[in-house]
Amino acid sequence: MPYRPAEWATIAAAGFSPEIVHSMAVMIFRYRFYWRVNTWHGRLPAARLSRTRNQGSDMTQATLDILGIGNAIVDVLSRAEDSFLAERGLNKGGMALIDADQAETLYQAMGPGVESSGGSVANSCAVAAGLGARVGFLGKVANDGLGQVFGHDIRAAGVHFPTAPLVGGAPTARCLILVSPDAQRTMNTFLGACVTFGEDDVDPAEIARAQVIYLEGYLYDPPAAQAAFRAAARAAHAAGRKVALSLSDAFCVGRHRAAFRAFVREETDILFANEAELLSLYETEDFAAAAAQVRTEVAIAALTRSEKGSLIVAGDATYEVAAVPTQVVDTTGAGDAYAAGFLAAHTMGLSLAEAGRWGSVCAAEVISHFGARPQTDMKALVGG
Amino acid sequence: MPYRPAEWATIAAAGFSPEIVHSMAVMIFRYRFYWRVNTWHGRLPAARLSRTRNQGSDMTQATLDILGIGNAIVDVLSRAEDSFLAERGLNKGGMALIDADQAETLYQAMGPGVESSGGSVANSCAVAAGLGARVGFLGKVANDGLGQVFGHDIRAAGVHFPTAPLVGGAPTARCLILVSPDAQRTMNTFLGACVTFGEDDVDPAEIARAQVIYLEGYLYDPPAAQAAFRAAARAAHAAGRKVALSLSDAFCVGRHRAAFRAFVREETDILFANEAELLSLYETEDFAAAAAQVRTEVAIAALTRSEKGSLIVAGDATYEVAAVPTQVVDTTGAGDAYAAGFLAAHTMGLSLAEAGRWGSVCAAEVISHFGARPQTDMKALVGG
Repeated sequence: MPYRPAEWATIAAAGFSPEIVHSMAVMIFRYRFYWRVNTWHGRLPAARLSRTRNQGSDMTQATLDILGIGNAIVDVLSRAEDSFLAERGLNKGGMALIDADQAETLYQAMGPGVESSGGSVANSCAVAAGLGARVGFLGKVANDGLGQVFGHDIRAAGVHFPTAPLVGGAPTARCLILVSPDAQRTMNTFLGACVTFGEDDVDPAEIARAQVIYLEGYLYDPPAAQAAFRAAARAAHAAGRKVALSLSDAFCVGRHRAAFRAFVREETDILFANEAELLSLYETEDFAAAAAQVRTEVAIAALTRSEKGSLIVAGDATYEVAAVPTQVVDTTGAGDAYAAGFLAAHTMGLSLAEAGRWGSVCAAEVISHFGARPQTDMKALVGG
Repeated sequence: MPYRPAEWATIAAAGFSPEIVHSMAVMIFRYRFYWRVNTWHGRLPAARLSRTRNQGSDMTQATLDILGIGNAIVDVLSRAEDSFLAERGLNKGGMALIDADQAETLYQAMGPGVESSGGSVANSCAVAAGLGARVGFLGKVANDGLGQVFGHDIRAAGVHFPTAPLVGGAPTARCLILVSPDAQRTMNTFLGACVTFGEDDVDPAEIARAQVIYLEGYLYDPPAAQAAFRAAARAAHAAGRKVALSLSDAFCVGRHRAAFRAFVREETDILFANEAELLSLYETEDFAAAAAQVRTEVAIAALTRSEKGSLIVAGDATYEVAAVPTQVVDTTGAGDAYAAGFLAAHTMGLSLAEAGRWGSVCAAEVISHFGARPQTDMKALVGG
């Protein structure tokens, strides 16, 4: 892949001669190769390289493919019987917000844990970077041990992560994830430092750098983030960029339905939702009706349906994408990985059907093991 | 399993009438059942229950099956290409000691990590508890975030963990583990708070409670622990208990060969070693000769040989045990899990051949996924 069709097209459309277009494309390829090789080996942090690459470039040219904005969370995964969930009134398969005391009580009661960086959009960013997309992430950690873990992991995945950590406030957010014997995950999130993420953390220059900004619905929960959410979308559209949104969780949609409905209609170009989330959004039991409605509201909707694959609706077009069969160990991060594959392929200029396939491949990888971040060479997996 | 043959035999040997033996055995079973059910559901910490169970019992009756003594470490696992190891001069498959600065430098260079509680003997303790053995662990963490993770995980596994954390000194130990594409692990350990573990942390009353104390060779590395090592062995033998030892690592054996040779000969009843460790101990290239020598020095030696299974030598008896085939993902903790299965079965009064089989089953589980602690119901796996 010497350079990407999408970039070529953008450059050509700007009216340069074919020779100049060729040399610009070669230059882009060389920069990117240098960046990849060096961040892969960890010699230089992605953030510094991104700045280097940006110098002298035209800001109307995207220097990131995807900029994710979401909660910066460290996951603590543990296996639990369904009876454990039932005894504590935990809603299997959902995400519940808990406070510091509840987090401590639940942690003491749950089994041995495995810690790994999480956060819905942050997971997507890590997967997309693994696929070769140029990715940034904005989200708030604290200046503590778990915050260092989160920062290390996302940068080590090759993601540009410029948000300053919170000093002297709440600790880094954690999500206590209980994985049932049937591989379903039940999430209990203590938002910690995430509640301070706000409009000030959304740098319009970062937004303008990315082809697509990708927002998680969970970001409606911490109060200050709602303003950041809208500011980010406005800045993206002002810079001629696209806005992608994940509905995140049916209960989260229920908590903020009116805001979601408006945001989907007014600000969303690409929507990710699973069946339950879409039905909750439109308060219906009829998937076909909900799919028909979302088709009129967003340019592209990728609707995931677990083992039934996904349905992509875009204007008059509809694509049915099969799921990739795998041995399911833990469904944590399935939707995040799907969105990552989809957005990575889409921003590389691939077709919507191919983007859906990449989504399915990535989701299958992530659910085949414990934890939400990939454990294999994702590029090889999509055959890219 | 109403009660264990080994316990029955011990009680009967004490000269009580069959009726009293029966009611004592029933009582033991009830206590144990209560303890298991409650620690499984996390309602009561194992430590508190252990104390409850101990009240009024005769101290000459073991109330623990295994007491492990080792380094209390949190693992940070990450995938790495062989070239990453080669560039940094890391010895593939081995364990190297690193200082705080080296740990920071390596952490910054390595890929995204997964954190989980580790430590060789601590891993064994978690596996053995999962098999239904009554287990304790002595080891030093700091009073910090990772220390809390370690304490939570080992207690949540059902292990009694009484050692007080270090306050105001070095942080909790961590091991940066690089997993190669061929599933081999290369470990880089920053010992942190472990270096303060010493004789004072070895409570003779805890030692006297356990049928077997299990020591890791790695404990020779932190200087203060060597005294603890010998004190623990003396206390165990004084109380009529057995001493088990893992040689841990061929390079660790090389660093402390004379001490190991003496300890094996003078204090070890049950020895765990892989091929490389055994050859290093006796400075030979001849496995058969080394096996013949160890047979004369310890009562039982369980010699692990990766996919070739294990060889158990005990007096005149020899047992060849097959490995359990599995898809190998990460060999971290293979030896720890083998020792756990072996010791759990052995302290339950099962045969040496069956103990070897339990070891193989446990090792296969742990190498089939990322990380050294089990992710499945170990009791079901051994069919116990």
